[in-house]
Amino acid sequence: MIIVMNPKCSEREIADVKNELTRQGLGVHLSQGETFCIVGIVGDTRRIDSDNLLTFDGVDKVLKVEEPFKKANRLFKPEDTVVNVNETLVGGNNLGIMAGPCSVESEEQIIEIAKAVKESGANFLRGGAFKPRTSPYSFQGLELEGLRLLKRAKEETGLSIVTEIMSTDYIDEFVRDVDVIQVGARNMQNFDLLKQLGKTNKPILLKRGLSSTIEEWLMSAEYIMAGGNENVILCERGIRTYEGYTRNTLDLSAIPVIKKLSHLPVIVDPSHASGYWYLVEPLAKAAIAAGADGLMIEVHNDPQHALSDGQQSVKPELFDKIMQKVKVLAEMEGKSL
Amino acid sequence: MIIVMNPKCSEREIADVKNELTRQGLGVHLSQGETFCIVGIVGDTRRIDSDNLLTFDGVDKVLKVEEPFKKANRLFKPEDTVVNVNETLVGGNNLGIMAGPCSVESEEQIIEIAKAVKESGANFLRGGAFKPRTSPYSFQGLELEGLRLLKRAKEETGLSIVTEIMSTDYIDEFVRDVDVIQVGARNMQNFDLLKQLGKTNKPILLKRGLSSTIEEWLMSAEYIMAGGNENVILCERGIRTYEGYTRNTLDLSAIPVIKKLSHLPVIVDPSHASGYWYLVEPLAKAAIAAGADGLMIEVHNDPQHALSDGQQSVKPELFDKIMQKVKVLAEMEGKSL
Amino acid sequence: MIIVMNPKCSEREIADVKNELTRQGLGVHLSQGETFCIVGIVGDTRRIDSDNLLTFDGVDKVLKVEEPFKKANRLFKPEDTVVNVNETLVGGNNLGIMAGPCSVESEEQIIEIAKAVKESGANFLRGGAFKPRTSPYSFQGLELEGLRLLKRAKEETGLSIVTEIMSTDYIDEFVRDVDVIQVGARNMQNFDLLKQLGKTNKPILLKRGLSSTIEEWLMSAEYIMAGGNENVILCERGIRTYEGYTRNTLDLSAIPVIKKLSHLPVIVDPSHASGYWYLVEPLAKAAIAAGADGLMIEVHNDPQHALSDGQQSVKPELFDKIMQKVKVLAEMEGKSL
Amino acid sequence: MIIVMNPKCSEREIADVKNELTRQGLGVHLSQGETFCIVGIVGDTRRIDSDNLLTFDGVDKVLKVEEPFKKANRLFKPEDTVVNVNETLVGGNNLGIMAGPCSVESEEQIIEIAKAVKESGANFLRGGAFKPRTSPYSFQGLELEGLRLLKRAKEETGLSIVTEIMSTDYIDEFVRDVDVIQVGARNMQNFDLLKQLGKTNKPILLKRGLSSTIEEWLMSAEYIMAGGNENVILCERGIRTYEGYTRNTLDLSAIPVIKKLSHLPVIVDPSHASGYWYLVEPLAKAAIAAGADGLMIEVHNDPQHALSDGQQSVKPELFDKIMQKVKVLAEMEGKSL
Repeated sequence: MIIVMNPKCSEREIADVKNELTRQGLGVHLSQGETFCIVGIVGDTRRIDSDNLLTFDGVDKVLKVEEPFKKANRLFKPEDTVVNVNETLVGGNNLGIMAGPCSVESEEQIIEIAKAVKESGANFLRGGAFKPRTSPYSFQGLELEGLRLLKRAKEETGLSIVTEIMSTDYIDEFVRDVDVIQVGARNMQNFDLLKQLGKTNKPILLKRGLSSTIEEWLMSAEYIMAGGNENVILCERGIRTYEGYTRNTLDLSAIPVIKKLSHLPVIVDPSHASGYWYLVEPLAKAAIAAGADGLMIEVHNDPQHALSDGQQSVKPELFDKIMQKVKVLAEMEGKSL
Repeated sequence: MIIVMNPKCSEREIADVKNELTRQGLGVHLSQGETFCIVGIVGDTRRIDSDNLLTFDGVDKVLKVEEPFKKANRLFKPEDTVVNVNETLVGGNNLGIMAGPCSVESEEQIIEIAKAVKESGANFLRGGAFKPRTSPYSFQGLELEGLRLLKRAKEETGLSIVTEIMSTDYIDEFVRDVDVIQVGARNMQNFDLLKQLGKTNKPILLKRGLSSTIEEWLMSAEYIMAGGNENVILCERGIRTYEGYTRNTLDLSAIPVIKKLSHLPVIVDPSHASGYWYLVEPLAKAAIAAGADGLMIEVHNDPQHALSDGQQSVKPELFDKIMQKVKVLAEMEGKSL
Repeated sequence: MIIVMNPKCSEREIADVKNELTRQGLGVHLSQGETFCIVGIVGDTRRIDSDNLLTFDGVDKVLKVEEPFKKANRLFKPEDTVVNVNETLVGGNNLGIMAGPCSVESEEQIIEIAKAVKESGANFLRGGAFKPRTSPYSFQGLELEGLRLLKRAKEETGLSIVTEIMSTDYIDEFVRDVDVIQVGARNMQNFDLLKQLGKTNKPILLKRGLSSTIEEWLMSAEYIMAGGNENVILCERGIRTYEGYTRNTLDLSAIPVIKKLSHLPVIVDPSHASGYWYLVEPLAKAAIAAGADGLMIEVHNDPQHALSDGQQSVKPELFDKIMQKVKVLAEMEGKSL
Repeated sequence: MIIVMNPKCSEREIADVKNELTRQGLGVHLSQGETFCIVGIVGDTRRIDSDNLLTFDGVDKVLKVEEPFKKANRLFKPEDTVVNVNETLVGGNNLGIMAGPCSVESEEQIIEIAKAVKESGANFLRGGAFKPRTSPYSFQGLELEGLRLLKRAKEETGLSIVTEIMSTDYIDEFVRDVDVIQVGARNMQNFDLLKQLGKTNKPILLKRGLSSTIEEWLMSAEYIMAGGNENVILCERGIRTYEGYTRNTLDLSAIPVIKKLSHLPVIVDPSHASGYWYLVEPLAKAAIAAGADGLMIEVHNDPQHALSDGQQSVKPELFDKIMQKVKVLAEMEGKSL
């Protein structure tokens, strides 16, 4: 961390800052040019509240030099993290393909779709039991009954289950019944939920917040990891911009950026990112070409009558076609399903 | 709600859409131009999932004609809502001024600041007991002990207490001890929390999400109101943009927009919006001039050693100066404290 | 175009709106539900200024039903536009690969790089002669001397030249010496420049503005096409968001969206989009996988001493490696160089 | 400027960076902690291209310590710039109120509005002769005839004229006929235009780009000032965000931020910022309360038939009411018209 003093600051102001840092047990390294004066801080600056330093007279800026995340930082763990879900691996050279309907609607629906996506090559079944909906008047999910139906589909197909948790109230049921617990975009900074998930040893799928920076996203992973649970899979699902032809703007640059900053696996959800089924195929292919460790895709056998998000769901036939192309791309990237 | 068909759609495609709407018990009104074909929907469209209509062949767009919020809508309740907190009113012509430290740190600190802000004209004491921090390594608040200290400050000064709730776990304590329960920006779409707060009758201060639209914000208010609790105060606290000289971009246009769309009171938090203490005075004045129903301002007696957000806290002397100007502006706007 | 009246509007207000439309020679189609009242406009609404309709009492919203672009619209020209540059094609199944340094610096530099990128498979040479720089104190380009050097490189290699025009002052020189005239992001809405380029018959490479919507971008293409020049190639180069780890956020969803809305070819510039050389390879591959009609990539033989944008330039060896992968992906997508 | 080396960089990599800086005639100051290594640069870093430094092996980040603008920087000119337009002052304690129609439409229209806004207290007449329109099919302004009509209105009222220039082609006419030359948001980074305006001595009104940072905006002012013309007035007119209820998001925080960074006057355009006439009054008042040096407001005597932007124009009666309130606020802020 570096403190940039005002070029016109006084000796006294510099001394005050130095004293404060010394008081906190940190070393100081002064560097003075003609038009600037910089105080470098020596020691573990993660404990410092840079905001308070800004309140000292004469201080212009406080610049971070080190990334604020530790356990998620590739600097401290250079090799890729590979998350093991019932012997299916995600990360390294292993792609995780999670497919299924937005909402679990009935036993028949979820089993039929599960069979279809497995047939096409998916290795996880996704399906919402608890649904975060913008409107209180929209369908809110089958809740615990939804979890029960997902388990039925798992029995039928052997696919591991991914589903979203919305509050800490049902954490025991999720730990017992679910294989990968999803934290949705709206809860990415629900720190209380993250802390409690950090105490479990379940794999967590952490979606990027609607307008979260990559740094904030990795700090949310850090919350889970700081609690002791290092089984975190990141999921890019589009960020909010001013563009109106798509629901969100898929940020594929995030994939190679995260590969550089962190060792955690990162997958892509082209369905929620784009909001339209016809965009899923090109974006799924682009995600794999950009180095993603997997995909999460909404598949529905009857999108016109889906209880949520029908317009962004692909039908099983199109999903099958997408998977044929994904397999070729995966091979090209040295990855396998 | 209006369905825009593709100009080249077939008769059959139009018929399919009409049948689906009829099946849902809705009326249909067809309007055909040379280069467009529109299906107007007659009836209560709030139950419709517009996303699914987009999956029908021949459908280009689905346009909303009505606002999706009902209880928060000024159309259905033209007069201003005035929230009564222990006989202090917020809304209509009554300004709510909420001031205090970012975090409650000690009994001495909170009581000293409470006395100071009351002296200057604040009618609520704010202070964080449970703190949402980006980093798991930052100070997380005094938690229940913080609530206890806020109550002490209330005993000393008579000021009503505003403090943030972070999960449903402590909802009973908050209902018992707190006068206005704050939902923070990061939890604006924590729907589970909103639903449970909707079952209480406590005044709720609902902050706008970091990148939430005004419509989403009002829909979150609707979640609380749908549960039966209509005591909602909105709080604009800046939205995320690309600009780096401020922490967020304060959206003061939101004040008159909300006044038009909704009857709910809306206050402004210039401290979190800007991130710097020197911006608080101009933005506080601007907020009142734009028609805000109040302010939430961070005040600290020793910002250099604050446990959080020191750089955006004003000292009691500056707060006093701000309040003098706010009072003049309030009078000009026909409002009183 | 559809006018949404206020649900509480009067008969008189509806009549005023109808009269105004009739006065403008347009037909009207009234549609009244329980909670809404809609006036559909029949006729060519492109001439209407929807902004003025909003000033009529009783009008709540004016919703566009048709896209505002005409010549760029796939509705009116379903087949892909293929731009022919000296017998090299861009669009349809033909990829245009434009590579070269950010700035032309010397005869030796530009010829060396031109030879290298041609060897790797590029079919266009890019290089800036006039440079748009944020600071007046930065290198502004070799200007006309830069154009001369580009021509020399063309003589040596046969590669067609792409370079940016910054004002109408040199339009004659550009038409004479340049093969594809580039309009940079900052000039995407320099309407005067667009109009004058519309009067030439040169191929135009139109970059997306820093924060332009897809609709605005296509409207800028429409400016050129309305003047009679239909040789427009679009270039996605990232949009401005709040994310700080990349210079811009590459919006690859724009590729399939434009393919649906328009017949114009669209290429991708991963160098400017990301701002870092290590992100160019994954994003270039992703762009082709998403269906782009080509790439624009910055290549420099000595990035450390480049006069501009060194950190986002790849070296010739890396460019060669990228091109190997691009060729495989292109084949997979049924495209050829 | 500070170079942050990778914590794992080698001695050799540090030496390479030092040699490069020495080669450029700059001093170097090395600062090494346990987990970081920083190279401070001593000397005038404005000539350095920080992008190239990023290409050196071992370099992680390059952080700016000094603001990149010089002539616009308050550090080098602490007192407020006051721009003198025919003896009407803008800046310091003097408010500039610029009012008039979006487009000049006829002699009768412009003179009638000019008289009305002068009567209410405006000291400048605004009106567009050359109009930047998103669509080539929209009204493009009366062009030179518009300038002539503005001069007529000036003869009648004595008000100084503000109007937008769209290309360098008519720069002589603008210098001769116009009192304040406006550079519109879309041309804020039309560097060629800025350079040529820098060679005149006309007051320039520089609007903020649609999604420009404050730093970029000040760098565009720097372009004009570097040419020798220091008569620059800044104009905040809203930035692009995801919010849809307003055309743009007015960034009032920019006012106090610019007051701190720069000595240039800054005014606010609430009409273009919001896009709706009913938002003009609250935002105009808020702007003055936040410390703006003036306002630019669209006023039209017949908004329903305006040739552009009718929905954001206020009628003369409402403008008069706004001005009454602005005068009271101005007095409160110690400013005069």
